Amino acid sequence: MELSTAHSTAIRMKLNINKSALVDAVSQVSKAVSSKTTIPILTGIKVQADEEGLILTGSNSDITISVRVPKKVDDKEQVIVEKTGDIVLPGRIFGDIVRKLPGDKVEWTVNDRLQTIIRSEQAEFQLNGLDPEEYPRLPKLPREQVFTMPADLLKSVIRQTVFAVATNEARGVLTGVQWQLESGILTCVATDSHRLSRRQVKVEGSEDLVLKNVVIPGKSMNELAKTLADSSGYVDMIVADNQILIKNNHLEFYSRLLEGVYPDTNRVIPKSGETVLITSTKELLQSVERASLITREGRDNVIKWTINDGKVQVTSTAQDIGSVTEEVIAKVTGPDLSISFNARYMMEALRSIDSDSIRIQFTGVMTPFIIQPADREDSLHLIVPIRTR
Amino acid sequence: MELSTAHSTAIRMKLNINKSALVDAVSQVSKAVSSKTTIPILTGIKVQADEEGLILTGSNSDITISVRVPKKVDDKEQVIVEKTGDIVLPGRIFGDIVRKLPGDKVEWTVNDRLQTIIRSEQAEFQLNGLDPEEYPRLPKLPREQVFTMPADLLKSVIRQTVFAVATNEARGVLTGVQWQLESGILTCVATDSHRLSRRQVKVEGSEDLVLKNVVIPGKSMNELAKTLADSSGYVDMIVADNQILIKNNHLEFYSRLLEGVYPDTNRVIPKSGETVLITSTKELLQSVERASLITREGRDNVIKWTINDGKVQVTSTAQDIGSVTEEVIAKVTGPDLSISFNARYMMEALRSIDSDSIRIQFTGVMTPFIIQPADREDSLHLIVPIRTR
Repeated sequence: MELSTAHSTAIRMKLNINKSALVDAVSQVSKAVSSKTTIPILTGIKVQADEEGLILTGSNSDITISVRVPKKVDDKEQVIVEKTGDIVLPGRIFGDIVRKLPGDKVEWTVNDRLQTIIRSEQAEFQLNGLDPEEYPRLPKLPREQVFTMPADLLKSVIRQTVFAVATNEARGVLTGVQWQLESGILTCVATDSHRLSRRQVKVEGSEDLVLKNVVIPGKSMNELAKTLADSSGYVDMIVADNQILIKNNHLEFYSRLLEGVYPDTNRVIPKSGETVLITSTKELLQSVERASLITREGRDNVIKWTINDGKVQVTSTAQDIGSVTEEVIAKVTGPDLSISFNARYMMEALRSIDSDSIRIQFTGVMTPFIIQPADREDSLHLIVPIRTR
Repeated sequence: MELSTAHSTAIRMKLNINKSALVDAVSQVSKAVSSKTTIPILTGIKVQADEEGLILTGSNSDITISVRVPKKVDDKEQVIVEKTGDIVLPGRIFGDIVRKLPGDKVEWTVNDRLQTIIRSEQAEFQLNGLDPEEYPRLPKLPREQVFTMPADLLKSVIRQTVFAVATNEARGVLTGVQWQLESGILTCVATDSHRLSRRQVKVEGSEDLVLKNVVIPGKSMNELAKTLADSSGYVDMIVADNQILIKNNHLEFYSRLLEGVYPDTNRVIPKSGETVLITSTKELLQSVERASLITREGRDNVIKWTINDGKVQVTSTAQDIGSVTEEVIAKVTGPDLSISFNARYMMEALRSIDSDSIRIQFTGVMTPFIIQPADREDSLHLIVPIRTR
């Protein structure tokens, strides 16, 4: 087990690394690597060893994830770089190899013919690398215009909006979540024109930072939420040059922005309601879930609420299958009302709400209605009803 | 919430049932129900209420699963049948409804127009049933010719053979596992003609019971293993009329048998080996897993063993990707040997072996070799090597 071919050539990169640190970094950046890309170099993971440790980067045409493995974490040595350098390795196979290495320590050498030797205990892998010169450069974003919020809050904001984006790629900007920043308040809106979700949060950063018409692809938002799954602490965000960068500890997440002008959604949101319903989020959700069992095969998944006298009667009927009916106790003010809507929109909105109790405001049977946590105003979901017989 | 349509008609079936007992039974029989079947009635679950409780049945063209919910379990009431009767309900939707019912108790009524009312607390479902007369009858099997083994042992036997069946449907009997019973020994064999797995177990039953050429579809075996996942105790088995029935407590599992004559596999199994290798199952498996990372994209997933001097050198090379090499310590007797084979066959065989240590016997580089647990003779895997340069 000699470095047979490497002996006759110069060393391009050389390091020793802790296996579990490498496994973690590779699984993070792998989320951005697709084997289906039409750009061959993007099936690879870029590896750069520098004075500070190692940086791994994975990318597809929408997002880029970059993770640094620092030399030390909590005084524990993670990487010893003997020669700085870089290489691109085939992403999927590199990830599989790293996960399967037998030992805790990994010896890693790249020669100037891009041949890569990865050794751990009795196992030695030789992998043909790709030229890092071909790998796209990361955008350089201005590090001044930063705003900040806790990672957990960002994950909530994503979870409470992204499900409402349009899924049909042909719908352009509506497939993204709109971010607007003004006076330190970030407003995130998603809509597919049948329903809308909006969340507002206070962020830290310079008061005069204003963002308008920043639209982040829904898919990127979902990937970001997954990438941040185990993250805590704060995230820094920078928007520039048709890109957004989200930073958390040793992780950098880039997404392209969508082009086009996002519609003004403020005017579709009614300011108040005639009939107002307050009830248990969980009980209402479960009743809608049951009602939709019968109708979900249908195109519109229509269920009906009949609201009066301290209760909501939930009903649904599907011609060939059958029907459901049940009642949920509620505090109702204002006129009685019967209204029909898509059960999936309601379930997705109710599932995203963390409060035990919700308030729903109606202005009529054919106008959009608003669902909000009973205890807060910064989160809002709107659903357009469906006309039925 | 009145039984509106049911009032004017006669009751066909009526019962009260504990929700969790119903959920368990429905999930068991649902494993046999496919929504893709071309026989509409088989998308349903058949329900029969009799003096002893309830029987649910699900079926596709290959397997049938039938589960009884008895009136009482451990003195706890599970079903109260007020009127015996039967109905077929749409399988997927019925399963979803049952799982989502709000209460612990379920009231269930079917009228003579096959309309079914399922009530639990505040929720009431009305489902259109199908005519149980259209549901295929279960085969009547002779209850005398029974043989018996522990459920856990049956699951092992399946797990240690079924992976070796041919997956291409055109291969006929080779897509099944052959069961032969003679002198109280059940021999199970699976082969796709490139590798073979055989397991022998002692069963209880009449000594003179002989079975030859019983071939059970591999898919049925996999479904049976899943169906028995949480089962313990003993299973009774009966073969007749081109069907096998496996019984465990309140569960009956039927599978059709494959037609055609299974080849005689005894003559391909060498009786002894010249080179014999004994080593750790886990270390050898992990080395093969690593070697296959490089070659698994290729058609044959070929890796090579070079056996000599107390070790196995495991190597693999893929032209464009790279290579792996590592060594595993082993006890070797007989002549040195280099042999190449499909890594997947080896991994599947090694993963199915529960013993810590294995014995591999070779008779030459181009003849099949045998893998066995080092401590037992009743389990055997055979792999045909691949010729390489």
